[in-house]
Amino acid sequence: MNLDYKNKSDEITAWIKQAVLGAGFEDVVVALSGGIDSALSATLSVNALGKEHVHVLLLPYGKLNTKGTEDAKTVVKFLDLPKDNVHEIDIKKAVNSFRWNSNGTQQTRKSDMAEKSDTLAYRVLSKSYLKIRTGNIMARVRMIYLYDFAKANNCLVVGTENKSEYYLGYFTRFGDEASDIEPIRSLYKTQVKEMAKYLGIPEKIISKSPTAGLWEGQSDEEEFGFSYQDADRILYHHFDEGLPQEAIVDLGIPKETVEKVLSWVAKNDFKRKLPKIFG
Amino acid sequence: MNLDYKNKSDEITAWIKQAVLGAGFEDVVVALSGGIDSALSATLSVNALGKEHVHVLLLPYGKLNTKGTEDAKTVVKFLDLPKDNVHEIDIKKAVNSFRWNSNGTQQTRKSDMAEKSDTLAYRVLSKSYLKIRTGNIMARVRMIYLYDFAKANNCLVVGTENKSEYYLGYFTRFGDEASDIEPIRSLYKTQVKEMAKYLGIPEKIISKSPTAGLWEGQSDEEEFGFSYQDADRILYHHFDEGLPQEAIVDLGIPKETVEKVLSWVAKNDFKRKLPKIFG
Repeated sequence: MNLDYKNKSDEITAWIKQAVLGAGFEDVVVALSGGIDSALSATLSVNALGKEHVHVLLLPYGKLNTKGTEDAKTVVKFLDLPKDNVHEIDIKKAVNSFRWNSNGTQQTRKSDMAEKSDTLAYRVLSKSYLKIRTGNIMARVRMIYLYDFAKANNCLVVGTENKSEYYLGYFTRFGDEASDIEPIRSLYKTQVKEMAKYLGIPEKIISKSPTAGLWEGQSDEEEFGFSYQDADRILYHHFDEGLPQEAIVDLGIPKETVEKVLSWVAKNDFKRKLPKIFG
Repeated sequence: MNLDYKNKSDEITAWIKQAVLGAGFEDVVVALSGGIDSALSATLSVNALGKEHVHVLLLPYGKLNTKGTEDAKTVVKFLDLPKDNVHEIDIKKAVNSFRWNSNGTQQTRKSDMAEKSDTLAYRVLSKSYLKIRTGNIMARVRMIYLYDFAKANNCLVVGTENKSEYYLGYFTRFGDEASDIEPIRSLYKTQVKEMAKYLGIPEKIISKSPTAGLWEGQSDEEEFGFSYQDADRILYHHFDEGLPQEAIVDLGIPKETVEKVLSWVAKNDFKRKLPKIFG
């Protein structure tokens, strides 16, 4: 788990430069959420390509998570990005155009072939389920803005996924996982923090509680029911060292925590295995 | 290129059943465009799971391509789907919420850090470029509706990509390529037609000119500059038999056609190779 952060960040920087220039591009775009993953991805991109070649999108949903937007602006200042490289788009209107009625149905009309039926096609759903659906729509709407910007401005899209999120399946398919290059996916969240410190990213970005920003006050770790520090230890033993559950418990990590982490892995395993293709 | 269509469709049907039930699902959802690929994918799904378990979304953009919507309804009738399994959603409002101004700029405000600058961040773009961007947004908006429906109704998403489109790169990443299972990706377009005939899909669906439906009167083959029949022969020699360009020309296929097809392959090669991941 311990890395030489100077070496590793130099390696990633060289890799970004090669990946971008090698694909015939000069510029990249990153969505800055105000969190540490996008801050680190943007910083490595600036180190690789120069700040003139790094564009950032700030994609708030109305006034939700205004702290995230403030923090994103702190990152912009830290990177000293040219003003023209910074774009803020409120995604609320686009997201709300996908929203459903209060009973969980889509604002859809049945096909005229079906209009005589009263049956709800969409289930009446619990609030937490609607929250998940909204979160997915937000992540996918951001993807659309990011890729449209990239197409219009001849950029590659820099993804911001880390190894912890990847193994825990803590992402939206075709949403925040959508990218052209992924510079930090080999780093666990705790390693992301260490590299961010090494690169001088502002302390308030590093020490804030990680959040996907999907609702006010959301905390990844509360949602998980375990800390990234615990998760990373367990994921490292499981994936990097290939240890089974019992062996990890034998190392002195509480059984309950090991089970919780590995059940997140199992629950979201499908995300890394789809689509299935015939033939 | 010649297949035993009875055998092959039986195989695919058995595979869909296994893939869906094996993943713990009973239902699937398919977006019906009115074209042959989605018609075949839906038909195979009905054969595998029974019509009660197949939901379809018709996702027109306003009055654009109303012929496509009519044809989709022909498919619904052919499959005799229960009325409650058929849903029509107009994607226009959602798509337009992403549109840009007439000069090609997004309807974005610059971050307040950048508001003093007058420089356009978005390039002023040609009309054909805006068409491509709109097409991508349409495909991705459909993905959002499809995945939201799947989440709400506990369905897997059936993709409709064929082998010709896949090799030609004729799809939008995170748009129409987004799926959970891909039943017909091992079939070239000409093979899709033959299987559709074998399964009794209505003739008008089979014989219509293939279109992605992105603008009025669009034709895939006009856009390519070659027919699917030519493309499939060339793709088969190239990918299935591993022949280089010259050897394909030696078989008696016009050099210009071979070059055109393989340059589409090369141009969109990146779509199948991204994202690049460090580590």
